[in-house]
Amino acid sequence: MEMRDPVDFQVRTDLALEERESFPGDGGEISGVSLREWHEEKSQVKFTEVKILDERGAKAMGKPQGTYLTLEAGQLAKKDEDYHGEVSAELAKQMRQLIVDLMKGEMREERGVGRKPEELRILVVGLGNPSVTPDALGPKAVNQLQVTRHLEQQYGDGFCRGRGLPVLSGLIPGVMAQTGMETAEILKGVIRETGPDLVIAIDALAARSIRRLGTTIQLTDTGIHPGSGVGNHRHCLTRESLGVPVLAIGVPTVVGAAAIVHDTVDAMIGALAGNMATKGMGDFVQGMSSDEQYALIRELLEPEFGSLYVTPPDIDEKVGQLSFTISEGIHQAVFPG
Amino acid sequence: MEMRDPVDFQVRTDLALEERESFPGDGGEISGVSLREWHEEKSQVKFTEVKILDERGAKAMGKPQGTYLTLEAGQLAKKDEDYHGEVSAELAKQMRQLIVDLMKGEMREERGVGRKPEELRILVVGLGNPSVTPDALGPKAVNQLQVTRHLEQQYGDGFCRGRGLPVLSGLIPGVMAQTGMETAEILKGVIRETGPDLVIAIDALAARSIRRLGTTIQLTDTGIHPGSGVGNHRHCLTRESLGVPVLAIGVPTVVGAAAIVHDTVDAMIGALAGNMATKGMGDFVQGMSSDEQYALIRELLEPEFGSLYVTPPDIDEKVGQLSFTISEGIHQAVFPG
Amino acid sequence: MEMRDPVDFQVRTDLALEERESFPGDGGEISGVSLREWHEEKSQVKFTEVKILDERGAKAMGKPQGTYLTLEAGQLAKKDEDYHGEVSAELAKQMRQLIVDLMKGEMREERGVGRKPEELRILVVGLGNPSVTPDALGPKAVNQLQVTRHLEQQYGDGFCRGRGLPVLSGLIPGVMAQTGMETAEILKGVIRETGPDLVIAIDALAARSIRRLGTTIQLTDTGIHPGSGVGNHRHCLTRESLGVPVLAIGVPTVVGAAAIVHDTVDAMIGALAGNMATKGMGDFVQGMSSDEQYALIRELLEPEFGSLYVTPPDIDEKVGQLSFTISEGIHQAVFPG
Amino acid sequence: MEMRDPVDFQVRTDLALEERESFPGDGGEISGVSLREWHEEKSQVKFTEVKILDERGAKAMGKPQGTYLTLEAGQLAKKDEDYHGEVSAELAKQMRQLIVDLMKGEMREERGVGRKPEELRILVVGLGNPSVTPDALGPKAVNQLQVTRHLEQQYGDGFCRGRGLPVLSGLIPGVMAQTGMETAEILKGVIRETGPDLVIAIDALAARSIRRLGTTIQLTDTGIHPGSGVGNHRHCLTRESLGVPVLAIGVPTVVGAAAIVHDTVDAMIGALAGNMATKGMGDFVQGMSSDEQYALIRELLEPEFGSLYVTPPDIDEKVGQLSFTISEGIHQAVFPG
Repeated sequence: MEMRDPVDFQVRTDLALEERESFPGDGGEISGVSLREWHEEKSQVKFTEVKILDERGAKAMGKPQGTYLTLEAGQLAKKDEDYHGEVSAELAKQMRQLIVDLMKGEMREERGVGRKPEELRILVVGLGNPSVTPDALGPKAVNQLQVTRHLEQQYGDGFCRGRGLPVLSGLIPGVMAQTGMETAEILKGVIRETGPDLVIAIDALAARSIRRLGTTIQLTDTGIHPGSGVGNHRHCLTRESLGVPVLAIGVPTVVGAAAIVHDTVDAMIGALAGNMATKGMGDFVQGMSSDEQYALIRELLEPEFGSLYVTPPDIDEKVGQLSFTISEGIHQAVFPG
Repeated sequence: MEMRDPVDFQVRTDLALEERESFPGDGGEISGVSLREWHEEKSQVKFTEVKILDERGAKAMGKPQGTYLTLEAGQLAKKDEDYHGEVSAELAKQMRQLIVDLMKGEMREERGVGRKPEELRILVVGLGNPSVTPDALGPKAVNQLQVTRHLEQQYGDGFCRGRGLPVLSGLIPGVMAQTGMETAEILKGVIRETGPDLVIAIDALAARSIRRLGTTIQLTDTGIHPGSGVGNHRHCLTRESLGVPVLAIGVPTVVGAAAIVHDTVDAMIGALAGNMATKGMGDFVQGMSSDEQYALIRELLEPEFGSLYVTPPDIDEKVGQLSFTISEGIHQAVFPG
Repeated sequence: MEMRDPVDFQVRTDLALEERESFPGDGGEISGVSLREWHEEKSQVKFTEVKILDERGAKAMGKPQGTYLTLEAGQLAKKDEDYHGEVSAELAKQMRQLIVDLMKGEMREERGVGRKPEELRILVVGLGNPSVTPDALGPKAVNQLQVTRHLEQQYGDGFCRGRGLPVLSGLIPGVMAQTGMETAEILKGVIRETGPDLVIAIDALAARSIRRLGTTIQLTDTGIHPGSGVGNHRHCLTRESLGVPVLAIGVPTVVGAAAIVHDTVDAMIGALAGNMATKGMGDFVQGMSSDEQYALIRELLEPEFGSLYVTPPDIDEKVGQLSFTISEGIHQAVFPG
Repeated sequence: MEMRDPVDFQVRTDLALEERESFPGDGGEISGVSLREWHEEKSQVKFTEVKILDERGAKAMGKPQGTYLTLEAGQLAKKDEDYHGEVSAELAKQMRQLIVDLMKGEMREERGVGRKPEELRILVVGLGNPSVTPDALGPKAVNQLQVTRHLEQQYGDGFCRGRGLPVLSGLIPGVMAQTGMETAEILKGVIRETGPDLVIAIDALAARSIRRLGTTIQLTDTGIHPGSGVGNHRHCLTRESLGVPVLAIGVPTVVGAAAIVHDTVDAMIGALAGNMATKGMGDFVQGMSSDEQYALIRELLEPEFGSLYVTPPDIDEKVGQLSFTISEGIHQAVFPG
């Protein structure tokens, strides 16, 4: 997660799910975007798969083409270890499928072709600032990872493969304000030197809705696109920029105060429009152009909430639990039976 | 700070300053409440003194009679050690005056009569949960305190007095969910056993406005009244409940998400009313009764923001700096030149 | 644990077990001291019960009369959650028995008479400095405790008793250098105000042998006697000083560097004496009077190791695990099946 | 710092100073090793410069050729911010000289030729495990560093140079057990991608003497040679392995328990030999061959202290202070007046 700078007003979300929800008429179709939802009875996890299929979909959603799979589990907010174990298992299952699909795409390049997840060389990267609690999710998850790559170096090439183990390595690259280097530079160097087949990148995300903080996990095969990926390719961590496929795992840990304001205005307009007495007003505001609505909200925002991000007071505990759920999910996805 | 429970919807603030601001017509007078504001040129600190003078004022403000002095310094948000030193000095000056005034009230009880702050026996209490970052302000401040009371026990009664030092002790009582005891019970026992003349209680507060987080310090001679002091006297830490005067130092570190929503609605109504085209709507909503407005906001709030508190992502650093500013302020207030 | 000050040279241990071992001829009997050892096959815990029966025993051991029960489990050093669970269960069993015995002694005072552990009002105290890692064991254990006493206050007297639950409260009083108050003063006040039947005090200990750090738990019905309890009654936390029985749980987390030196000298003398060629020397040193041996060791110690305490580099993790094992043990001991 | 594994018995030190002291006859000359000592009156810092001049010296010392400069300041153990400032200044002065000398050696390779420290591109690396307190010195120092390299990327090449600023970047690579990668691999990749002229590597060291913990800083132009650099070139961070010169800054934070035992035996032998009555024994043990002495000590060590490292209980605070002293020293060395 990179906190955006103060001039950036836009009410953004890193969750494709929330981007999708923001379209009017909710149930409707967006051209170039497919949507699939299902529940797991036992684990009470709700899955939402958003696929951005073409350029039109990418433009509408403001996100690159690819698959975005979201796991939602309200109970994740609670301190229930057994439940976290169930979510880890669901996460592992989905991650495994995404890895298999990602590596199929690599076939023509004859690297890691047809290998199972447990036969790959995988670099897990914990993005974010380890010193800022809501941003420390990725670093914490990598800290709990059981790496194996050094065993290959100690006991010889093929040591892991011979035992059906993945060759797992982990890195916490830090953030640019602390390193003076772009994460992509650090990763490119480390990848060239250590040769993984796949990168798994774990990051804290910004959501639009407070209730998603700490209860939602997003998997995507599109990599990491800080600042919404609109044009700013320098910072991307993707197949293109790194040379290996990138599976991204994200958990929302902050919301912009602007998002709360925005949602309130939306809800208020809805409430006004839904009430006979105030219907006229609600209709009126709904009838305002997008630009006019923007101007109104911007006015409401200044100068308090502009670029402020907020997080729940118990985020320390939440990040601790979820980083564990994710590292366990990775273990189950890549270590066989 | 005690997080209020989910059924509590009210948009509250622990700052008398913000309570005062919430009255319509802002500049107007509230019966039974006096207001005084001034700036210190050099330190760029803005002071606001709210005095609640009688029962009417207390009822209007929802807070007990007494003096509430607020220091605001936007720069406190920054990592400037020299500046924090200046604020500590301002804090010390005001605290010293408040202590002198408080102890005058004690005269007729012949305890600590006419003593200077440096001659008192003072117990500093760090309220809040040390494990929850935005609530750890008080505990952190007490951790940085230089206590002296044990020197009296080691080198004899009068050791501190003889050197013009206060007899300073410190306690971090924890929160009821962790101790199973009310803070007032713990303090009553410790006060009876160790006999201080004065309690200084440091606490994290809830504000209404995000921009006050980490930039504002409130001093009050009324003690601590969790849950707004409305009827719930069991939890109060006051002259009445503890038997010694209580100076409270508070810093806002969280805001209710409900406050953000509330302010947005307010601002939106204002914006609608200020615009020719939408004037009718704004006027209409303004014309709604208080109960109707409440019902509207409550509807907007559900189910997302109800009882949620939020805090800035860098609260860890902010709490670290401010706890130091406060402990330094106490040192300067009670240790002579 | 209170670090002793620099002039204190004596190679001390807080473990009665180690004190007992230090007597020459190891297997021999000490008048006034009984010894019993056994193993639990399944949990692989070794138990040693040292009972100091009379004044002679107390003088020989430098510890007050009473029962000292030690659980040793080398595997505790490892990160095996299941194993920690087994040790918690053993701990709970022994603790329960000790509590029953302690409360029998209270009979004639008609308080908590004949009650089961789950029917008592218990205050658990986490001694030590929460900011110094090896001393934070007690505070961390109390942080993980599930207190219930406040439920009585919320739902009425007898709420816990009616459900067969103990009335559990917890306190982290801090150390004198931070509070300016003696722990006994704080506890006396809190006990008077909140009325527990029993105090359980958790503390970090100093051991003589490095291999005991993090692998040993000592239970005793004699309370806490910092500075070896020799005359320094001001600091004691005992039935006498607090007015209620005190069960103490201790885990060694530091050793004095002096202890390492001392053991080396002992071992070296033994080695010399056991070797034909050097037998004369070993015998000679063994033949030195206790005072001469002291003088020799003191000379070897100066100026490096005098009062230094040392701890393993991974003490952070060890303290984390053991504090959990202990809080779980307490839960199992006082909450019924 | 890499903790050595259990079979490694040798009483090692990472300080050239201590290695030098270990030679018998202390004041005597070692062929191929020069020694220079001086005091700074004002800062009360003692400097010792050990130069290993040739292969013979390297073999005798068990360390590679080069310069080892040690700053000792007993007061560093205390919490005196002003004093830490003075030590930072001394450190900066020496560091600056070492950097100038190092870069002269680079002349023939036409990179960074004749540049002042403030004109170089420097990568500062914090070695060690951030989660293990005594090993976190390097990571903590890098966290406090003010990096600038990203400004070049934001405002254009030459931005820093134009202002006389160094191009500073920082990295916390983690340890192999957490990353599965050798630190050298990570650094090689990052160096290739980001092109620094110089690496400054900060590491926690193992000393032989407890009194050096937290009071000593070693600078060396030989880079990092974990495991004593004897043959194990895979792990080295040097001019040879990384392609750029490496200035290493180290602070001892642990000692082997074996070192304490070893020193005790030495001191005891000395004491015996110095005493008329026991002179024969001391002489006898001194007369033992090195192998026999080894065997004796090994016997004394087993099974307790073999590979144990120990650290002071307040290491947390010490590492916090020293990491700040070092990062300030680097700032002063590379940022112009």
